[in-house]
Amino acid sequence: MTITLQDCRALDAQDPLLSLRELFHIPHGTIYLDGNSLGVMPRSAPARVAEVVTLEWGTDLIQSWNKHGWFSKPGQVGDKIARLIGAAPGTVVATDSTSVNLFKVLSAAMHLAEADSPGRKRIVSERSNFPTDLYIAQALCRERGFELVLVEPEEISAALTRDVAVLMLTHVNYRTGAMHDMPAVTAAAQSTGALMLWDLAHSAGAVPVDLTAANADYAVGCGYKYLNGGPGAPAFVWVNPKHADRFWQPLAGWWGHATPFEFTPDYRPAPGITRYQCGTQPMISLAALECGVDTLLAAETHGGMAALRRKSLALTDLFISLVRERCEGHGLGLATPMDHAQRGSQVCLTRAEGAYAIVQALIARGVVGDFRAGDGDRHKDILRFGFTPLYIGFEDVWHAVDHLHQVLQTGEWRRPEFNQKHAVT
Amino acid sequence: MTITLQDCRALDAQDPLLSLRELFHIPHGTIYLDGNSLGVMPRSAPARVAEVVTLEWGTDLIQSWNKHGWFSKPGQVGDKIARLIGAAPGTVVATDSTSVNLFKVLSAAMHLAEADSPGRKRIVSERSNFPTDLYIAQALCRERGFELVLVEPEEISAALTRDVAVLMLTHVNYRTGAMHDMPAVTAAAQSTGALMLWDLAHSAGAVPVDLTAANADYAVGCGYKYLNGGPGAPAFVWVNPKHADRFWQPLAGWWGHATPFEFTPDYRPAPGITRYQCGTQPMISLAALECGVDTLLAAETHGGMAALRRKSLALTDLFISLVRERCEGHGLGLATPMDHAQRGSQVCLTRAEGAYAIVQALIARGVVGDFRAGDGDRHKDILRFGFTPLYIGFEDVWHAVDHLHQVLQTGEWRRPEFNQKHAVT
Repeated sequence: MTITLQDCRALDAQDPLLSLRELFHIPHGTIYLDGNSLGVMPRSAPARVAEVVTLEWGTDLIQSWNKHGWFSKPGQVGDKIARLIGAAPGTVVATDSTSVNLFKVLSAAMHLAEADSPGRKRIVSERSNFPTDLYIAQALCRERGFELVLVEPEEISAALTRDVAVLMLTHVNYRTGAMHDMPAVTAAAQSTGALMLWDLAHSAGAVPVDLTAANADYAVGCGYKYLNGGPGAPAFVWVNPKHADRFWQPLAGWWGHATPFEFTPDYRPAPGITRYQCGTQPMISLAALECGVDTLLAAETHGGMAALRRKSLALTDLFISLVRERCEGHGLGLATPMDHAQRGSQVCLTRAEGAYAIVQALIARGVVGDFRAGDGDRHKDILRFGFTPLYIGFEDVWHAVDHLHQVLQTGEWRRPEFNQKHAVT
Repeated sequence: MTITLQDCRALDAQDPLLSLRELFHIPHGTIYLDGNSLGVMPRSAPARVAEVVTLEWGTDLIQSWNKHGWFSKPGQVGDKIARLIGAAPGTVVATDSTSVNLFKVLSAAMHLAEADSPGRKRIVSERSNFPTDLYIAQALCRERGFELVLVEPEEISAALTRDVAVLMLTHVNYRTGAMHDMPAVTAAAQSTGALMLWDLAHSAGAVPVDLTAANADYAVGCGYKYLNGGPGAPAFVWVNPKHADRFWQPLAGWWGHATPFEFTPDYRPAPGITRYQCGTQPMISLAALECGVDTLLAAETHGGMAALRRKSLALTDLFISLVRERCEGHGLGLATPMDHAQRGSQVCLTRAEGAYAIVQALIARGVVGDFRAGDGDRHKDILRFGFTPLYIGFEDVWHAVDHLHQVLQTGEWRRPEFNQKHAVT
């Protein structure tokens, strides 16, 4: 049975999350399926950012450290993020970049492993993990005499040998949208004596996450994707409270000190997650991040992450169904799992030829997804579409696939202007 | 001969930099002598920040990576900062925090020393260096089996033994405003075979710095003090081009990769300073930093850093003279050197009793300086006053000292409300 535009409009009309879309500024004429790369601007952000700039910085200046609580902002925003990832209050800080935070927790995990299980000198990760995670792990392994072992998803179990210190995975794969079973994988890693470190870059705010229930050991995540925190927003870091006080991490700056304003020459780490802070944080960008996180907390009265998840799966199901119905015979493949339990909040299509140009042609039509190059071997070129249930509607999905159909049907993507590569894609 | 308010007004009238004050929003009724902690907001910042938020993020979204050059912003702002510190184009990036950047360069310096001069396993610094620098050094020494040796300024020469790998100093001391002779100290360190690492937190934009002429090895600095970049603005990092390609640093994130958008699993460091980048940078805060740096570049047509330095010394000379004339007998001491060659852009007063309360009483009167606690032994409690020549005038200095005189003369500082400590001071 063919899905119609009217069917999609009916789904929007029944959507309990529909009103949340009003929290965002969606550019006119744009269907934005790239919230997995950079979330849309909350309407509250310009005024709040202006307030931090003109009032807190411009007028109150240095007194804002006390008056506007700048020093406690990373913990305060962290506590809000904690509600989205099943973390207890006081166990998350919003700070630095995902890469820097990964360095902190992987470093701490390696120290923990060295203390509790000497001889375990391997870090296991996926070859298709987001590269910066692998680079950081590579650097730390080189510094500390560990070995980084990269495997395919189906090889993870077999790779968990008795010499593995840490299993480090991204919960939802950035290329394919495939999602790991967090509790099961965590339990499997820990049963072999390894520590479990999760990167939640494509999960926080996108799918329900319960770090506490999964009994994970460490986690980091990104502020500018599904948390809608703005370009390069500070990232976040969580450490299982049972580990938090056991080790300090080498980015031992003053914001992680027990008494930073005593200016003592010796480092004494603050208790808990605070020791995972390092230097002074970018307050203007942090204010924008808080606006973004607040859009997700606004969903709490509409069913919260469970309702967002239901809608996300309905959106991605609809997209997949429409692509099958309307783009048949155009050589598109599906890289994202059909099984809901294994799917994040994005859909990735593959095509042997023209994936980059098709994405460009769609962008020119106002349908913004992105392209991720394959490695020519196991992984094909990918057309990536993120579905942020806070602001994407079912009619949007219909139009997006309609444009995709037209781009393929007309051969529009073959035009030269869609085949010129940008520096950053 | 007594200095009068009219004398100060005459100095302002002759000041070739006077018009630059119009670049800033100085809160009404405030004499802001804390630009060494958080610089004043440039008038250009609110509009530019709003543009990044509403246009670049809000409207152009992910396309801003190309359209608005987000990816190259750290290098572009770095090139502007380079002009203030005697660094060549392409050798500075604006990124992360000072603490994180110090970790990068100290780590790289330690690797360089291990390769070129094995056996050198000491890092020498000043006991009164800004604590976060010492914490980072302490952490790295612990990780790498090095020893951190802390000395007083007059003991530095003697501490430069043949086992010293790196001399790590802050150019202008945050507590006292005392300034090192950068070329002489650099040459002394290098003559013993040590590498020279400078923290320019209280120098960049405050005093002339020529890293190239001094042939320094590494430098970091702060964006939110004299660069007027806003609260927690990204910091900067410089590496002498002769070292830049020799080592990569362990914060090996994707922004330091030679081809970050090829998403290859192996880290291949970019040439030059780019490899000192790590993760995605906070674009909104980075835009504010650029506004701040631009205020210093605006001074280039008014004589640049040399003219700023002349005015800074005139301001601090005036402040010292007026304190001597008008506050005699009130137990104030001077912690800042009288010798111009040894003075940064701040003046620090000492007092055996009430330093904290006097600062609070001054703030209540609109004269904003800050307090730094002594350690009870060598260092006394400090009343710290920064003089940013871009926006502080000679009349401001007169009124500041007039208020100080009144606070001391009336005993106003003894009021209970001025003796309650805040969390952050």
